[in-house]
Amino acid sequence: MRQSTLFGRTLREAPSDATTPGTRLLLRAAIARPLAAGLYTWLPLGFRVARKVEQIIREEQDRIGAQEIRIPVITPAEYWKETGRWDTLEPVTFRTRDHGGREYMIGYTHEELVMHHARSEIQSYRQLPAIVYHFQEKGRDEERPRAGLLRVREFVMKDAYSIARDFEELDRQYWAEHDAYARSFARMGLDAISVESDTGNMGGDVAHEFQVLTDVGEDRIVVCPSCDYRANMEKATRAPAPAAAAPADLPAYASIDTPDATTIETLERRLGLPARDFLKTLLLRDAEGSVVAVVLPGDRELNEAKLRKVLRTSAVKFASEADFTAAKAVPGYVGPVALRARTLVDASVEPRGYVAGANRKDTHLRDVVPGRDFRGERVDVHDVAAGDRCPKCGAGLAVRRGVEVGNIFKFGPYYADKMDATYLAEDGTRRPLMFGSYGIGIGRAVQTIIETSHDERGIVWPKAVAPFDAHVVALPSRDGAVPPAADALVAELESAGIEVLYDDREETAGVKFADADLIGIPLRLTVSARTLKEDAVELKGRRAENGTLVPRGEIVATVKELARP
Amino acid sequence: MRQSTLFGRTLREAPSDATTPGTRLLLRAAIARPLAAGLYTWLPLGFRVARKVEQIIREEQDRIGAQEIRIPVITPAEYWKETGRWDTLEPVTFRTRDHGGREYMIGYTHEELVMHHARSEIQSYRQLPAIVYHFQEKGRDEERPRAGLLRVREFVMKDAYSIARDFEELDRQYWAEHDAYARSFARMGLDAISVESDTGNMGGDVAHEFQVLTDVGEDRIVVCPSCDYRANMEKATRAPAPAAAAPADLPAYASIDTPDATTIETLERRLGLPARDFLKTLLLRDAEGSVVAVVLPGDRELNEAKLRKVLRTSAVKFASEADFTAAKAVPGYVGPVALRARTLVDASVEPRGYVAGANRKDTHLRDVVPGRDFRGERVDVHDVAAGDRCPKCGAGLAVRRGVEVGNIFKFGPYYADKMDATYLAEDGTRRPLMFGSYGIGIGRAVQTIIETSHDERGIVWPKAVAPFDAHVVALPSRDGAVPPAADALVAELESAGIEVLYDDREETAGVKFADADLIGIPLRLTVSARTLKEDAVELKGRRAENGTLVPRGEIVATVKELARP
Repeated sequence: MRQSTLFGRTLREAPSDATTPGTRLLLRAAIARPLAAGLYTWLPLGFRVARKVEQIIREEQDRIGAQEIRIPVITPAEYWKETGRWDTLEPVTFRTRDHGGREYMIGYTHEELVMHHARSEIQSYRQLPAIVYHFQEKGRDEERPRAGLLRVREFVMKDAYSIARDFEELDRQYWAEHDAYARSFARMGLDAISVESDTGNMGGDVAHEFQVLTDVGEDRIVVCPSCDYRANMEKATRAPAPAAAAPADLPAYASIDTPDATTIETLERRLGLPARDFLKTLLLRDAEGSVVAVVLPGDRELNEAKLRKVLRTSAVKFASEADFTAAKAVPGYVGPVALRARTLVDASVEPRGYVAGANRKDTHLRDVVPGRDFRGERVDVHDVAAGDRCPKCGAGLAVRRGVEVGNIFKFGPYYADKMDATYLAEDGTRRPLMFGSYGIGIGRAVQTIIETSHDERGIVWPKAVAPFDAHVVALPSRDGAVPPAADALVAELESAGIEVLYDDREETAGVKFADADLIGIPLRLTVSARTLKEDAVELKGRRAENGTLVPRGEIVATVKELARP
Repeated sequence: MRQSTLFGRTLREAPSDATTPGTRLLLRAAIARPLAAGLYTWLPLGFRVARKVEQIIREEQDRIGAQEIRIPVITPAEYWKETGRWDTLEPVTFRTRDHGGREYMIGYTHEELVMHHARSEIQSYRQLPAIVYHFQEKGRDEERPRAGLLRVREFVMKDAYSIARDFEELDRQYWAEHDAYARSFARMGLDAISVESDTGNMGGDVAHEFQVLTDVGEDRIVVCPSCDYRANMEKATRAPAPAAAAPADLPAYASIDTPDATTIETLERRLGLPARDFLKTLLLRDAEGSVVAVVLPGDRELNEAKLRKVLRTSAVKFASEADFTAAKAVPGYVGPVALRARTLVDASVEPRGYVAGANRKDTHLRDVVPGRDFRGERVDVHDVAAGDRCPKCGAGLAVRRGVEVGNIFKFGPYYADKMDATYLAEDGTRRPLMFGSYGIGIGRAVQTIIETSHDERGIVWPKAVAPFDAHVVALPSRDGAVPPAADALVAELESAGIEVLYDDREETAGVKFADADLIGIPLRLTVSARTLKEDAVELKGRRAENGTLVPRGEIVATVKELARP
C-alpha cells in the first residue's frame, strides 16, 4: 500500500488529553481516531492489526470446535427481561425504541440471545456439546471513557458461548476456552495471566480474567510471588492473621471528646493511635434501597465489588440524610454500638478494643469490643493489601495494576433456569442447558499490545499482528533511479506474499524514518541512491539502532524468512 | 464440521409467514433465525456464506485500491446535524442517548462520519485520490420488515466512500466501483444489472442501482428490450407520445352530475369513457407542510419518488381536511379548475378536453382543457408503464420486479459543501473534497442468491459462496465399517483443503438426503455399506438426479477439481 494516499496521517504530537503511552501512540501513528468520547474509528493501519488479532482468535476458537455465528447489535428487550438484566444493566447500556414503541438494547453482551437460540435449536443431548461465537459490536455507556481504546463506549468483542449437558462437560469447555485464550494472547504478543475474578453483573459463580500487568491498567491484581495464586482485587482474599484471643479484662467502653474529628487521619493525629486501632463504620444503601452498616478497621479499605456480591445488589452508594436519622447515626461519628441498622463486620476486625464513632456529634467511644459491645454478620469485604499473606501458601502478596484483556464465566444452569432452556437428556428427562461465556475485546487487546510493546520512538508491533510485514522507504534523491527501483522491490516483495507499506511520499529522510519508527512495522527496507550504488537494500529491524546492507538479489528471501512469526 | 453438533436445526416446514421461496429456504435450511421482526441472527451455515460474500467484495474493493477501516455503529448526532440528515432521517432511524443526555444515531449509513475523518486526515492534493470502506451494521427502522433478509432493521453493509480532487477523478472512482460491483455480483453468482436510480435521501444527482430481476423484488425496474436503457421506476422516463395539437373549437367546460362517483373506475362505468379521458387531481402535503395539487390523466399512476424529488421533500402524504377547505376543494371531486393550491401538471396530460372534478360535491366538469381552463407547473411525476416508448431508442419498454443488491452514488461536492471539507489544491487554493458512496447489503445479497438459485428440494449454492465445498453423508448401516470409513474420508478431504460438512447423525438415509438437498452444498459424497463394497464413494452434484460411484482412491482429487469455482 502506498503511504502517500494512506488514509490517516501521523501526528507529531498527541492531543494533551491522551493519558497513557499507548493512547498517545495510537493517535500519533494513525491507528485509530475518536469520533466522540469513547467512540473510535479504526484507520487502515489499525484495522489491519485488529483483523489479525481477530483472525488469531478465530483460529483458536475454531481449533476447539467453536462455530462462528452473528447476532444483531440491536437486541429486543423481551429476552433481557427474562433474566432481569433489562433493569440491572440500565445504568451502563444504550437503549432505543422503534417508531412503534418496541424497546431494544444495543447489546451489552449476548448471553440472553444465545440462550434464546439454543433453547429453540437444541432439542436433544445428541446435539451437545456446542460452542458458538461471534465478533460483534457491544455498546456500553461508560460514565468515564478513558485511555483510548482501554475503556470505550463501543467495541468489537469476540464473545463465545458454550452449551453443555452437565457440569463435567461445561468444565471441559471452560478449560478448553481458558487454554484457547492463553494461546490467543501469546500468539498476539500479550503476556496475559489468568486470575480469579468476580462475576459482577454476569451471574454465576466461577470466572477468570486474563490480565496483562502494566501500570496503565485500572484493575488491581493480587499476585503471589511464591505460588500460582492470582486474583482480581474484587475477588482476592488473604490468609487470616493469627487469631488473637479476646482480652478478657477490657474496661467497658467510654466516651471521649473528639470535636471536628470526622476522619481516621484526624483521629490518628489527635489521639496518637495508629489507624488499625480505630473502627470505621460506613453507612451505605444498595440499589434496592436497603441500608447497611459496614465495620472495618481504620487501616483497611472497603472493597465495593465484594460488598455488592454479599448484598446481591448491582450498586452501593452512601446513605441519605434520612437513612442516618433512621439509624440514629451522625455523619462523621457513625459507630456500631447501638446503631439501628443491619451491620456487617469485616473479617479483618479483631476481637479486641477499638476506638469507634459514638453516633453523637464530636464524640467517639474507646474500648469498643466487637462481639461484646455490638454484633453483626461476619463478611469479607476488605481490600487485600501488599504484604498480606497468600491464602494458598502464606507468602507475602504483591498488588499490581492490570488491563483485563479477556474474561471467562462458568454459569452452570444460571441462565437456563431463568430462561427455561432445557434439552431432552439420554434418560428421557428434561435438563437445563449448562452455559458459559467467554469474551475478548479486540480494541483493548490492540491497545494493550501497544502499551506493552513500544519505545520512545514509537510502536514496536509483534510480527503476528503488525499492520504490514515490511516498510519500504524510498529516500528522496536527485537520482531518478530510486523511485523505479523501490517500485520494483515492492512489487517483488508483494508477489512473494509479503505485506508492504511503501513510503513513496515526497518527504525528507528524517520525516520518513521518524514515521517508520512511530508506525512500528517490524522490518524497514530503505532504497536510496547510496543503496542502489551498492546494488543493495538497507534492512533494519524495528528495535535495531542501525540497518545492514543486504544484496538486492537476496533481499526478498531474507525478508520472507524474517517476516512471519 | 460434524452435523450432529452443528448449531441450528433444519425445519420440515417453514413458518407460515415466510412469504418468498428464499425466506422459506433460509429458515428451513438453518441459514438464519429471527430474533424479532427484521432482526436476524446468522447461524453457522449462513455465517459461512456471508463471510464468503464479504470476502469476494473485500477482494474486489482491495483490487481497486480501497482501504478497509471501521467506523462505530453508534454515531454522534453532531455530524448528522451538519448536513441536516439528523432531522430528515428521523423517521427511518434508531436513536439513543447516553446517561449524560448526548444524542446518537445507530448509523443509517456513514457518509457524514467518513467526511468528518476526511476533512481532518486529508490536507493536501498529494493524499488524493482515496477510497475507504468498511463492513458495518446499519440500523434502519423499517416500518414493514419483509421477506427474511430482503428488508430488515439491521444488516451488515459494505459501504465504500471515494474522495477525489475533482469531477474527473470522482468519475473514474465511480466507474471503478461500478465495475468492482459488477465483478463482485458475478463472482457470488448473482445476475445483477445496473440501472439508473433516484438518489432519495442520500443527496447528489447521479446514482445507479444493481438490480437482480426476480418476482420477489419490491422495486419496479423499467427495461428496454432493444437498447441498454434500464432505470428504476423512481427515475425512469419515457419518450413523449406524439404531440397532438390542441383542438381549437372545444366548447367551454360545463358541469355534469356525478353523484357518488369519487373514483376513476366509477366514472369510467358511469360515463362510458376510458380512464385516459379523465383528469385525477391529488391534493397532497409535503414533509414541510406545504400543500400541492398534482394533475394526472386517469390512466396514469403518480410516482411518489419523482414527486418528492420535484418538491425537494422527504415525504408526501394526503392533504388534511383543513387543507381541502383552504384549497376550496371537495374530497373525491378535486379538480384543477379554480383550485386554490400550487398546481403541478404531469407531462402525460395532453392539450385536449378532459373530464375533471368540479370542487363541488357530486359534480364533475367536462371539456376541461389544460392551459385554457387551468395552469400549472409541468413536471414528470408519473410511473412509466409497460409498452411506453424507450427514451433512448423508442422501443416498447418492459417493467420487471427487482431486488436492489447494491447502489452507488456520485455526490460531487454535496457533502463537502455542507461539512466544510476542503483540501489544499496544487495551485494553493482550497477546494471541496469530491465524494461518492457505494453500498452492498450482505444479508440481502445472500438471500437474493437463494431466491434465484434453488429448486423444489432446496437451496442450490453457487460454488463460490457455498457454506462448504462438500457434504459427506454416512448412511446408517449395521456394518460397523461405515463410520470409520467416513471419518477417514472427511479427514483426507479436509487435509486437502476441502471444506466439509459431515453428516454423522443417527438418521435415516431419507432424512439425510433431504437435508443435504435442502442445505444445498454443491457436492454430496455418500459413504455406505454398498459403496464400501465397491471401494468407492458416491458423488452427486446438487442439481443431478443420481450420483456416480467414484473409486475411493480418486475421490479426493476429483472433489478438489470440482469444488472450487
